[in-house]
Amino acid sequence: MKKSDVVVIGGSAGGIPAAISCRRRYPEKSVLLIRKEEQVLIPCGLPYIFGTVGSPEKNLIPDAMLKNNGIELIIGEVEEIDRDKKVVSIAGGETVSYDKLVSATGSSPVILPIPGVDKENVFSAIKDVAYLNNMLDKVNQAKDIIIIGGGFIGVEFADECKKNRDNSVTIIEILPHCLELALDEEFCIEAERGLAERGIKLLTNKRVEAILGNKQVSAVRLAGGQERKADMVIMGVGARPNTELAEKAGLQIGPTRAIAVDRFMRTITDPNIFACGDCAEKYAYFSGKPSRIMLASIAGAEGRIVGANLFDTRYRNCGEIGVFSTIIGEQAFGCAGLIERMARQEGYDVVTGEATAPDRHPGLMPGATSTKVKLIFSKDNGLLLGGEVSGGRGTGELTNIISACIQNDMTAYEVSLFQMGTHPALTASPMVYQLVNAAELAVKAMAR
Amino acid sequence: MKKSDVVVIGGSAGGIPAAISCRRRYPEKSVLLIRKEEQVLIPCGLPYIFGTVGSPEKNLIPDAMLKNNGIELIIGEVEEIDRDKKVVSIAGGETVSYDKLVSATGSSPVILPIPGVDKENVFSAIKDVAYLNNMLDKVNQAKDIIIIGGGFIGVEFADECKKNRDNSVTIIEILPHCLELALDEEFCIEAERGLAERGIKLLTNKRVEAILGNKQVSAVRLAGGQERKADMVIMGVGARPNTELAEKAGLQIGPTRAIAVDRFMRTITDPNIFACGDCAEKYAYFSGKPSRIMLASIAGAEGRIVGANLFDTRYRNCGEIGVFSTIIGEQAFGCAGLIERMARQEGYDVVTGEATAPDRHPGLMPGATSTKVKLIFSKDNGLLLGGEVSGGRGTGELTNIISACIQNDMTAYEVSLFQMGTHPALTASPMVYQLVNAAELAVKAMAR
Repeated sequence: MKKSDVVVIGGSAGGIPAAISCRRRYPEKSVLLIRKEEQVLIPCGLPYIFGTVGSPEKNLIPDAMLKNNGIELIIGEVEEIDRDKKVVSIAGGETVSYDKLVSATGSSPVILPIPGVDKENVFSAIKDVAYLNNMLDKVNQAKDIIIIGGGFIGVEFADECKKNRDNSVTIIEILPHCLELALDEEFCIEAERGLAERGIKLLTNKRVEAILGNKQVSAVRLAGGQERKADMVIMGVGARPNTELAEKAGLQIGPTRAIAVDRFMRTITDPNIFACGDCAEKYAYFSGKPSRIMLASIAGAEGRIVGANLFDTRYRNCGEIGVFSTIIGEQAFGCAGLIERMARQEGYDVVTGEATAPDRHPGLMPGATSTKVKLIFSKDNGLLLGGEVSGGRGTGELTNIISACIQNDMTAYEVSLFQMGTHPALTASPMVYQLVNAAELAVKAMAR
Repeated sequence: MKKSDVVVIGGSAGGIPAAISCRRRYPEKSVLLIRKEEQVLIPCGLPYIFGTVGSPEKNLIPDAMLKNNGIELIIGEVEEIDRDKKVVSIAGGETVSYDKLVSATGSSPVILPIPGVDKENVFSAIKDVAYLNNMLDKVNQAKDIIIIGGGFIGVEFADECKKNRDNSVTIIEILPHCLELALDEEFCIEAERGLAERGIKLLTNKRVEAILGNKQVSAVRLAGGQERKADMVIMGVGARPNTELAEKAGLQIGPTRAIAVDRFMRTITDPNIFACGDCAEKYAYFSGKPSRIMLASIAGAEGRIVGANLFDTRYRNCGEIGVFSTIIGEQAFGCAGLIERMARQEGYDVVTGEATAPDRHPGLMPGATSTKVKLIFSKDNGLLLGGEVSGGRGTGELTNIISACIQNDMTAYEVSLFQMGTHPALTASPMVYQLVNAAELAVKAMAR
């Protein structure tokens, strides 16, 4: 029987960082990663296969990351975890004994429980090269693509499936706005304008009741009976944690149906088994409540916690702040922490500050894009609860600055004195730098 | 006699934020800003007038910023401050009484004390529209431009003066590398490679001893006697604080020859007079030592402190972290806090971590640029002392994330768990995100 100090099950956004961090923290320990897939797709890159990047093969995580860090790789499916013997069994009969085990089995797309989802030309964001190659062929042929779900995945798929093609792309969203769970209404409306400009149709407040057709899709039926023509349907309606293996091993499952873990990312059932990424239960940073958020970046942060804690409990997970960014056409959007609506729902008395300026200076610098920052503070103590950004390509890192301020519990007063560097070709002007001006306007509003 | 609750002298990177912040914090107070210039140039934009932007008139700070915030403007030169009567006198005879006064008189370029600096075609970064228009004409005509000083200003002028022109541009730097005061050697070498690729010549370890010629410049002479042909010379060798007015008013001057202020940005001489920006004495964040650093972004942060403290001492200046960024061709560079060499000079036992990855993911995304982050930590307590970045256009905000981590006294352990958002078109992949990987590698190095 093979033996490894650490066995990691799953080779994507959670498993790889867990394995690498373990090797960095405990170089004397052997680490073996077992995954099902011959090739691993970059999860956040899936939508971009269909336009910008061009093929699944161009969107792979290189195995060199494992080799370079001295991590052994087995491609195979783990069928069983024997917790008493501390042994995993791989399909085909191989067994591996472990000292510490990491479950990083990820998630699978939610398939709506409606008639017709099994028809040909109904797809979802499945992380499999052959599946995605077939899906790409279909996108190239389809005339009427319907995307169910207007979250990040749905919007990104829509934008990419439209690129360089003479087709009709329609997003059907059950909520009043696309991206509504991630952004405040004014930002959603901006995003919707971007979609419209790119020729993408959006139906909101609409529920898909059935997918119609014979063998192939011909239309979808909305609640109320309206039908919309479609020769291809893509579902982007969330994901569910892959917990079958963990459940079979008797590991407790939490309230969001993910593997229950403590603040050290140990399963609450077995101190020798850890979990990270989409398969692991999460807690929101501010409320401490169980959270269904799933992001590759969170999987990575959790993986790093797991890697550090495997043989010595070093790091506590302070809860998920939730930091997203995306781009529609040339306009990027980002958010970190609580948006205003969510903060109010959580019972906070909130004060907001907002500042808009070009992201270069002077505004005549080539590539300058008007960029807006909205910050949300608790009126009680001035604490930064969250922020949103819409603007140019700097939006991703600008959103991460907001995240840095949140995870350091900064107040409006402190953010208003933020010491940033600025440069004509790289940032807004120091005088109108959006982050500090939004914070200062919030301070002003608090004083009222 | 005119009367204003607050009078701000100087209308650029320090004065404007001081005035605006005062109006935001104390909306009941009247604020009058007095400046010499008809039109105010964006200071960091000066080099870009000569290539990317095209004219001084396209690089102006709009007066609307003042009007929109209810700030009155007088264009004129303050000749005297009567501290007993609390009155300033403007050239031409007008007088204004104040309750609180802000000196934001900025700095002027250092002119080297060498023969020939008064010849025609010798220029420096003087913030004056007519001067810069003349300088632009000369840049357009010059065949052999010599730039004295390879700091940020010198390098940016070189890059811009070369753009779209058939000329020879040479930087002469007294230190072993260009940008040596801001970046560690390996980054300087990268920058030098960028300059060379753009056809800019660089002479290091060379001191200019004299500027030669008759009425016009014909050459410069280096120490040792070597001569270099030149029909235009641009000096970028630093700036000195404009303190004449303050000195005349009896305000104490500090060890860097700037106006001495306390941690609340009040002059140490007169509690009713504050100073901010290049004219005000600065202290380094880590050492607390007087610092000669001058940046528009620092002026802005200080201006915001002044604006808040004028009538109620609210904010302490924690010292200047020093956050720069620049770009040479398409490669950007940034630094925040202490570079490795400076940290060692300050006596720190340092540990560094470095990570390089494309700034988009997969690396095949259009526009992806290899981006390196180096972080410098104190080995004693793991505290982040500084960081450097070289890479794509996200470098400016990425450097600001490092600044956020420094100003919150984060350790390598904490930075390695940083919760960032990532997106294929906007950031590095979560697995290779440079900031957290550099921190984790530093943690590994500390454990040795």
